Amino acid sequence: MQINPVKGTHDIYNEESKEYSLLINQASNIAERFNYVKMTTPILESTNLFVRSVGESSDIVNKEMYTFLDKGGRSLTLRPEVTAGIMRSIATNKLYANAELPLKYYYVGPCFRYERPQAGRYRQFHQFGIEAVGNPSAQLDAETISLGYLYLKSLKFSNVKVVINSLGDEETRINYRNALKQYFSQYIENMCEDCKRRFETNPLRILDCKVPEDNEIAKNAPKLSDFLSDNAREYFDRVLNLLKLFGVDNIVIDNSLVRGLDYYTGVVWEYHISSNDATDVGAIGGGGHYKNLLKEIGGPDLEGVGLAIGLERAHYLWSTLVKKEPVDNKLDFYIAPMGDNALEVGIKFATSLREKGYSVSIPYENKSLKSLLKSASKSNAKFAIIIGDEEINNDNYIIKDLSNGVQTNIKFNDIVGEQLNLNNEIIEKLNNK
Amino acid sequence: MQINPVKGTHDIYNEESKEYSLLINQASNIAERFNYVKMTTPILESTNLFVRSVGESSDIVNKEMYTFLDKGGRSLTLRPEVTAGIMRSIATNKLYANAELPLKYYYVGPCFRYERPQAGRYRQFHQFGIEAVGNPSAQLDAETISLGYLYLKSLKFSNVKVVINSLGDEETRINYRNALKQYFSQYIENMCEDCKRRFETNPLRILDCKVPEDNEIAKNAPKLSDFLSDNAREYFDRVLNLLKLFGVDNIVIDNSLVRGLDYYTGVVWEYHISSNDATDVGAIGGGGHYKNLLKEIGGPDLEGVGLAIGLERAHYLWSTLVKKEPVDNKLDFYIAPMGDNALEVGIKFATSLREKGYSVSIPYENKSLKSLLKSASKSNAKFAIIIGDEEINNDNYIIKDLSNGVQTNIKFNDIVGEQLNLNNEIIEKLNNK
Repeated sequence: MQINPVKGTHDIYNEESKEYSLLINQASNIAERFNYVKMTTPILESTNLFVRSVGESSDIVNKEMYTFLDKGGRSLTLRPEVTAGIMRSIATNKLYANAELPLKYYYVGPCFRYERPQAGRYRQFHQFGIEAVGNPSAQLDAETISLGYLYLKSLKFSNVKVVINSLGDEETRINYRNALKQYFSQYIENMCEDCKRRFETNPLRILDCKVPEDNEIAKNAPKLSDFLSDNAREYFDRVLNLLKLFGVDNIVIDNSLVRGLDYYTGVVWEYHISSNDATDVGAIGGGGHYKNLLKEIGGPDLEGVGLAIGLERAHYLWSTLVKKEPVDNKLDFYIAPMGDNALEVGIKFATSLREKGYSVSIPYENKSLKSLLKSASKSNAKFAIIIGDEEINNDNYIIKDLSNGVQTNIKFNDIVGEQLNLNNEIIEKLNNK
Repeated sequence: MQINPVKGTHDIYNEESKEYSLLINQASNIAERFNYVKMTTPILESTNLFVRSVGESSDIVNKEMYTFLDKGGRSLTLRPEVTAGIMRSIATNKLYANAELPLKYYYVGPCFRYERPQAGRYRQFHQFGIEAVGNPSAQLDAETISLGYLYLKSLKFSNVKVVINSLGDEETRINYRNALKQYFSQYIENMCEDCKRRFETNPLRILDCKVPEDNEIAKNAPKLSDFLSDNAREYFDRVLNLLKLFGVDNIVIDNSLVRGLDYYTGVVWEYHISSNDATDVGAIGGGGHYKNLLKEIGGPDLEGVGLAIGLERAHYLWSTLVKKEPVDNKLDFYIAPMGDNALEVGIKFATSLREKGYSVSIPYENKSLKSLLKSASKSNAKFAIIIGDEEINNDNYIIKDLSNGVQTNIKFNDIVGEQLNLNNEIIEKLNNK
């Protein structure tokens, strides 16, 4: 009986695995250029953490969480996003004490949301993200936005766009919330149950309602941009001006952008990619400023700013829009032994080469030379080393460059000696990873 | 209200995070030398997968799994180990079709077991492992054992030991099982409930019983080593002889070693580390040969061999026994701007240096030169670039080598030009990661 993978999950292997590694290594590399340090928080957290941070009124908490009781009766949740866990870790481990602020952490790892699976959307998916906590400034917001932008540009996406908005400061949010409550109060009785709940917990969420009638009503609701306080508007302008200085040159202001998480305050943004015919194919990630998140979950009163990029989405777009040839990851040596004595010498070669840091493949079954050379080229090796009884007797082995067929002769000690003793051209090809 | 981490989970951050990265990068590096390709399988699998593979009689399946129903009523389990998922993926994606055998996959990722948390033992922990599937041979078994050995040696553990046993072939297991049933049948009525269950499902497991009375009875049970068939004994000897050829020179045969997973057949082993006073501090990982695992879960009839190493355990032992100094991970530049104009120039420097691949930190709050230089050295930077109004007016900035205090002068375009224009000594220090 075949056992199937769980609906909405996927395996990453072979060529695709190398592509994911490339996307992840590049993300780590860029984050480290901005002096971020990697953090790994657990996949299992108390359910309460996400209720408090992501927010009771969000779709994630209401509909999409994998929540269950463990054998000790605790309500646990598979993290639907990573920011809450990073904040919990900052509080748990008191990472703010005696530290240079802002704290700068990046992460790469799996998240879980019980959503309807679609092309490129999974129930277990992976996110890369960063969080900068403490010492907030328009510069830090702009730097954070630029990090994701630089990452996507470095992956050679031809058209990366930052779509940005400001949710304003506390004054803005109180005024806007009141205006929304007043506006929706005339309609709420006839709106859907979700909207009724949102009306009480977070009227801003009503604007995301997918029910056609409710959506129609929402269209005429007051606009957040009309309620921005002077301070909030000035701060937003400052961020917009700084973005150019940080190398972000494709910016679009979208007053309707709110993002799906309750904890954002101030600047929020998304990264959009365009296809080769310049159509916007949608958001690949985004982020925002958060004033109260760390305090909400019991930590100190430090503001933060962060971003997250969905790796499945990034990989899908990268492999369809950018990728031109396979990710190059050549094997250094394929060892081709003919017979039992040859196999023994081959194992000595393989062991010695691996100890010296080279990648080596060696077959353990009996094969003809023809079949060995076929396997060597199928394994995408740079060089084959051919070993037969005659080669052993004469201490004269053949090393074959599989890119051009050129053969050179080598001795046993050229390989198993303390240092590899091969001609410069071969050494150069080996070191050229 | 502070929200606590889930019992048995832990955060990995700062210096420790760099240490984990070192252990993981080295594991990937070694696996790739042996021509393994990374595979990432889901954390969520059908519960059935582990019942079928890890085995109904194992402690893992009986007591330690995080199992729950999802919103669609499916019984899901957070993987307690990764081998079963890799096999499921090989079957699901038909990875054996048209492929060079053995298939060789490595993995690094989280696993979950509801165990009593102890020092260095977590409910969410991480494993590195490999699986080689298809074309079984004594050579492939020995190669697999050597990979883990080479990995641990490369981490500079001073005393790595391979403890090894053979569970024999089918003939062995049938004969031994019968002998065990016969032996225990005289006692089973008075043994514990677990043992009664094991008596029916897998009498071999009775040998692991922790109940003192049962343990006493188990001590006099027949020994597996007395039941090894001639074939199995000969195969085991071949593996033992080959290990030396593969560079494994510290081997101990232990006839009582069985490992806790039902799927092993043939050779099983563990890696043991000794402390500096030569005391064996226990197993850091292990592996074994499995004949029927892939077939059991609905795949083709291909044998395999694999190993897994617990990263929390490896990290704990590495940091107590091996680590001498902090993992070196220096920041390239700390930019020290004094005043608003200097900050603007500083951001240009930072952006340009990051685009060129260097790591840069820049503070956005106003600080005195003294406080800036203190931060620079606290951030463990190689160089500080000092920017004030005078420096801007004269286009003459100071770059300070923080390892020796030596100062050099640079111009704006030395940094923001297409290529970095600094003296050779500085470039060399920058490239020396």
